[in-house]
Amino acid sequence: MTIQETAEAFTALLKAGDHQGAAERFNADDIRSFEAMEGPYAACHGKAAVKAKSDWWFGNHEVHGGTVEGPFINGDQFLLVFGLDFTPKAGGQRVQATEWGLYTVRDGKIAEERFFYPPMA
Amino acid sequence: MTIQETAEAFTALLKAGDHQGAAERFNADDIRSFEAMEGPYAACHGKAAVKAKSDWWFGNHEVHGGTVEGPFINGDQFLLVFGLDFTPKAGGQRVQATEWGLYTVRDGKIAEERFFYPPMA
Repeated sequence: MTIQETAEAFTALLKAGDHQGAAERFNADDIRSFEAMEGPYAACHGKAAVKAKSDWWFGNHEVHGGTVEGPFINGDQFLLVFGLDFTPKAGGQRVQATEWGLYTVRDGKIAEERFFYPPMA
Repeated sequence: MTIQETAEAFTALLKAGDHQGAAERFNADDIRSFEAMEGPYAACHGKAAVKAKSDWWFGNHEVHGGTVEGPFINGDQFLLVFGLDFTPKAGGQRVQATEWGLYTVRDGKIAEERFFYPPMA
């Protein structure tokens, strides 16, 4: 697959709300994932660790909706723009915010994902 | 300088409209720059080549305004969101569009810049 094909197929799954299917199909076994925050999920290495982070997030946030814009491709990387809309289940205010995901592709798989957003309060 | 300091100082210059000053102060001598298009400026290597690309762009586009959002930092990289508003001097319609700049910092300098936007028409 070209990066264009990989990026479009991955993004189509996200736009359909199938985050788990997108990760299962496209995350490389040795994927590295970087969040812009401190804590246990700041850096994850490996498909299972990234799934654990994802499962934690979806388990602890009520998702009201969301948007996915892209992919915007340059070289072996593509960018997605996420419109987030969620409320933490532990309490706290509903959050509507923008987040950017930067994906690095090798051999048709996502070798790295890195997320950008304003500092968490 | 921390990446936070570098990113904020660089972004402040861009927000003030001083693209040339930002590049002069922060671009590494061996900076690599990647556009999401074919052509002579798809990949530039070195501060002088990047300046030549920038000079070409500002020389060939009438800039009506613009916005800069960020920096959004993760590890040794930060993301900026550009709101563009320009008309090509050679003719053509006024363009209002969003572009993302991904900057990689080493030793307080920008070692790589990579731009994301929809495919050019």
